[in-house]
Amino acid sequence: MKDLLSLQHLGQDEIDHLLDLADRFGKDGIPEAHPGAFVGGLFFNPSLRTRTSMEIATRSLGAHFIGMDAGRGTWSLETLDGAVMDGDKTEHIKDAVGKFLSGAVSCLGVRCFADMDLPYEQARQDPVLSAVAAAAEVPVINLESALFHPMQGLADQQVVRAHLNGDRTDHTIAITWAYHPKPLPMAVAHTALLGFLRAGYRVRLAHPEGFDLDPEIMQHARDEGGERLDVVHNLDEGVRDASVIYAKSWGAAAAYGPGADDESLRAPHRDWIIDARRQALAAPGAFMHCLPVRRNVVVSDDVIDGPHSWVAEQAHCRILTAAAVLHEIL
Amino acid sequence: MKDLLSLQHLGQDEIDHLLDLADRFGKDGIPEAHPGAFVGGLFFNPSLRTRTSMEIATRSLGAHFIGMDAGRGTWSLETLDGAVMDGDKTEHIKDAVGKFLSGAVSCLGVRCFADMDLPYEQARQDPVLSAVAAAAEVPVINLESALFHPMQGLADQQVVRAHLNGDRTDHTIAITWAYHPKPLPMAVAHTALLGFLRAGYRVRLAHPEGFDLDPEIMQHARDEGGERLDVVHNLDEGVRDASVIYAKSWGAAAAYGPGADDESLRAPHRDWIIDARRQALAAPGAFMHCLPVRRNVVVSDDVIDGPHSWVAEQAHCRILTAAAVLHEIL
Amino acid sequence: MKDLLSLQHLGQDEIDHLLDLADRFGKDGIPEAHPGAFVGGLFFNPSLRTRTSMEIATRSLGAHFIGMDAGRGTWSLETLDGAVMDGDKTEHIKDAVGKFLSGAVSCLGVRCFADMDLPYEQARQDPVLSAVAAAAEVPVINLESALFHPMQGLADQQVVRAHLNGDRTDHTIAITWAYHPKPLPMAVAHTALLGFLRAGYRVRLAHPEGFDLDPEIMQHARDEGGERLDVVHNLDEGVRDASVIYAKSWGAAAAYGPGADDESLRAPHRDWIIDARRQALAAPGAFMHCLPVRRNVVVSDDVIDGPHSWVAEQAHCRILTAAAVLHEIL
Repeated sequence: MKDLLSLQHLGQDEIDHLLDLADRFGKDGIPEAHPGAFVGGLFFNPSLRTRTSMEIATRSLGAHFIGMDAGRGTWSLETLDGAVMDGDKTEHIKDAVGKFLSGAVSCLGVRCFADMDLPYEQARQDPVLSAVAAAAEVPVINLESALFHPMQGLADQQVVRAHLNGDRTDHTIAITWAYHPKPLPMAVAHTALLGFLRAGYRVRLAHPEGFDLDPEIMQHARDEGGERLDVVHNLDEGVRDASVIYAKSWGAAAAYGPGADDESLRAPHRDWIIDARRQALAAPGAFMHCLPVRRNVVVSDDVIDGPHSWVAEQAHCRILTAAAVLHEIL
Repeated sequence: MKDLLSLQHLGQDEIDHLLDLADRFGKDGIPEAHPGAFVGGLFFNPSLRTRTSMEIATRSLGAHFIGMDAGRGTWSLETLDGAVMDGDKTEHIKDAVGKFLSGAVSCLGVRCFADMDLPYEQARQDPVLSAVAAAAEVPVINLESALFHPMQGLADQQVVRAHLNGDRTDHTIAITWAYHPKPLPMAVAHTALLGFLRAGYRVRLAHPEGFDLDPEIMQHARDEGGERLDVVHNLDEGVRDASVIYAKSWGAAAAYGPGADDESLRAPHRDWIIDARRQALAAPGAFMHCLPVRRNVVVSDDVIDGPHSWVAEQAHCRILTAAAVLHEIL
Repeated sequence: MKDLLSLQHLGQDEIDHLLDLADRFGKDGIPEAHPGAFVGGLFFNPSLRTRTSMEIATRSLGAHFIGMDAGRGTWSLETLDGAVMDGDKTEHIKDAVGKFLSGAVSCLGVRCFADMDLPYEQARQDPVLSAVAAAAEVPVINLESALFHPMQGLADQQVVRAHLNGDRTDHTIAITWAYHPKPLPMAVAHTALLGFLRAGYRVRLAHPEGFDLDPEIMQHARDEGGERLDVVHNLDEGVRDASVIYAKSWGAAAAYGPGADDESLRAPHRDWIIDARRQALAAPGAFMHCLPVRRNVVVSDDVIDGPHSWVAEQAHCRILTAAAVLHEIL
C-alpha cells in the first residue's frame, strides 16, 4: 500500500482488511507498533476531526505527528508545474514536499478540498493533491481533496457494516443532498456513493435538478452499481424505506468559479432537510453525516441527537480507520 | 473529580490536596503516571502560559496533548442550543465536543474568556463554557472563562501558601484594579477574591467607583469572608500594610457590549499603577500578577523585576498545578 | 555551549565537532538521548523547514517540542526595554521569556527575521533576538534573525564538506544575489559568507551595485578571508568556474523602512537568475539554496531539479544539524 488518494484503486477485499484492522483496534486498542516514525499532515483547509483523528491515530501507534498549515505559520504553496513564481506564492510544492518533507517524514497526509473559486473543470482535476502526490517520494494520504475523502469513506463503511445485517442488497442507503448556506465540495458524496456501491449495498441518490455529481464519477457509479443505483430528485422519495440516510450538501458544478451565483440555485431548496417526519418515512433510517453539520438546516436537532443517529460513531471510527491505514502504510 | 469549572465547588481540603500534589511535583518532578492518555485543549482565545503549561503538564505525565484553536485551523463553533445554523458558524459545540472530542480525548480543557462585545448580563452566563460542559461526556477543565480562571487560582494559592507563614488572618492580600488600555475580563479577580477568602486570608479589594466585580460573586465573597473582606476605592489605601499586592485590570460591567465606551470610564484612573512608592506603603508587599501584564501601565518595571516580585513563581506553578489537576482527573 | 545566536563566536573546531555529530546522526540515526526534556520554539515569522526540522530533531532525541507563534494563538510581544505598554503589544518578552518560558523549557529557539519596515540601522540591531537572549535564563538558539541564520549555515557546511574534496582553497563558492519579487533579509547570505570563509573556501560574492551586505559583516569577511574573498557585480562573472553556486536574494539596505521603494532598485536586475547557461559557466557548479525559493525567478526548474542540485540534501541536513546542536545544548 503506497498512496491512499481514493478508495477506487483498492479492491473491496483490501478495504475489508482495513476495516477488520480498525474493528480490532476498536476492540483491543491501537498498538504502539511504529515507535519513532514521523507522519506529516499538510492542511490547506480547516480541519477538526480529520486532523485530530490523524494525530491521535499516529500517536497511539507510537509515532510522531507533524501538523502544518499551508500559508498560515508556514509558507504559501504554489502547485503549478513550471510556474514563474513572481506572484504571491512563496514556495513550490515540489520543494516543500519533494525536496524537504519527503526526507523528513515517513508518510504525508494532505487536506486540500475543492477551491470553489476555480471553475469546476479545473477544480475536478484536484490540482493540489495531484501536485503533492507527484512531488512526494513518500506515501501520500488524501485527507479530503476536491473529488474524494477516502478516510471518511472508510469510517463510514466501518459503521455501516457493524450495523446492517443480512444480504447487503436488502439495504438501501439514501445519499441525500441538503440545503446549506454556502456551496460545499462533492468529495464526501462521491466517496460515499462509490464506496457503498462497491460494498454491495443499494444506493438511492437524491438531489435537486442541477446538482448532479461529477459526470465521470456518476458513470463509474452506474458501472459499479447497475440496477442497485437509483437517482431521484425528490427528498421524500429519496429517503423512503431506506436503512440509512446519509445527508450531505454540495455545490452545483455550474456554480463553481469566480462570481458564480450558487445561492440562487440553492435557495429554492431550503426544505431539503432531514427532520423527524422524513426520518419516519425511512421507517426509520439511521442518520449519518460526516460533520461538521449545520443543525436545523441540514438536519434537525431531534434527528441528529436521536436514537437512530450514527454520527458520533462515525466520528469515533475516524480514529480507528486512520490508525488502520497508517499501520498498513508505515 | 470530574469537571473543574471553578474552585467554588471544591472544599479547601480538596484544594489543599491539589496544592500538596503540586508541591510534591515541584520537589520530585512530575511522574509519567498516565502514558497513552489524550488531553484536549480547545482555545477560543490566545494563550501562552495556559496552553504551554497544560501541554507541558500533560506530556510530563506521559500523556498526549491535542491543542485546537476554534475558528482558526478548525471550524468556527456555534454554542446556542437549537440554533438554525445558516449563518457564519460552521459547527455546533454539541457535535465538535459531544459527538467527536468526547470519544477522542480523556479530558478537555477549554479557554473562552469573556466576549466584551456581549452585554455583561449575557457574558456572565459563560455561554461557551456552559455549552462545552453540557456537551462533553468527559471531564472539562476551565482554562479561563468569563467568570473564573481556576487554574490560575490554584497556582496563585500554591505561591501564597509557600511564602506566608503564621496565622492566615494576620495577612492581608490586596487585590487592586489597574488601569489598562483595553477592557479585560473579571475572571482572574473573581477567582483570586473567592480563593484567598476561602483559604482564610484577609482580602482588601481596591477599585475605582463603577468598577465593581460581579454582584453575585461579591455576595459570595461577603458570605465567605465576613469581616475579613474590605472594599476601598483608593489605591494607596488599598495596598497599605498588605502582605501581598495582587494587581489586575478589568472592565466595568457597564461598559460591556457593542458600542460601550469603556475608555471614558477608565481614562480618569491612569494613576492606578503599582510602583515603588505604592509597594513601599505595603511595607513592602509582594507583587503578584497572572501575566500577561502591561509594564509601566499596570506595574512599573522596578516592582515586577524587584526582589518582592512573585510573578515568575506564579507562572512556574501553573505547570505544577496543571499537572496536579490532570493527575487527579485522568 | 550556551546560546547559539550566530556561528561567529564558535571556532571552526567547534563547528566541525557539530558537523561530525550531524554526520554520525545521519549514518546511525539520532539517539533518544534526552527523554523528558522540553524545547521551546518561538516564531515571529512563518517557517516550514526550520520549525519542522527543530521539531523532528527534538522528538528524535526523545524530548518534547513546544511550538509557539507570537501574536497568533499567543500574545503579541513587546521587545523595547522600559516601554510604557499602553499600545498594541500585550506582553513583554521579559515576562513571556524571562518569567515564564525560562522556567518551562530547557532551551528556546526563536525565529525573528528582519522586519523590513524598520530602517536598516534599526533592523540590523536584531532587536527581537537581543531582547529574547537578554531575557532568557536558558540557552537560546537563533532560528533566523535579521543578521544571521546559524542553523541553515551548519546544514550548508555539512553538505559542502561532504561533497568538496581536496584543498579547500581550490574551491570557489559563489554566493550570488538573485532577483525576487519582494525584498528579503540578509541573514542567510551573511551566514554563508562568513561560514564558508571561516571553513577555508574561496568565496566570490556577486550582487548588483547598491545591494551591499552589512558593512560590518563585510569587514569581518575581509578580515577572515583576505584574498580568498572576491566581490563582483556581474552574475556571469560571479559563477564562472565556481564549484558551488549559492543563490539567495536580499533587499538593499537603502530600501528598508516605511515607504521604501525597493522594487525600483530590484526591477533592473530581473536577469539575475541561475539557469542552465549560467550553471554551465561554472563547469558546472553545484546549485545550493536554503529554500523557500521562487522557481523560474531565482533559479530555473532544470537547475534546481537537475543532477547538480544539492537543495534536497541541504533541507535534510537541517534535521541532522538541529539534532547535533540540541544534543550539545541539552
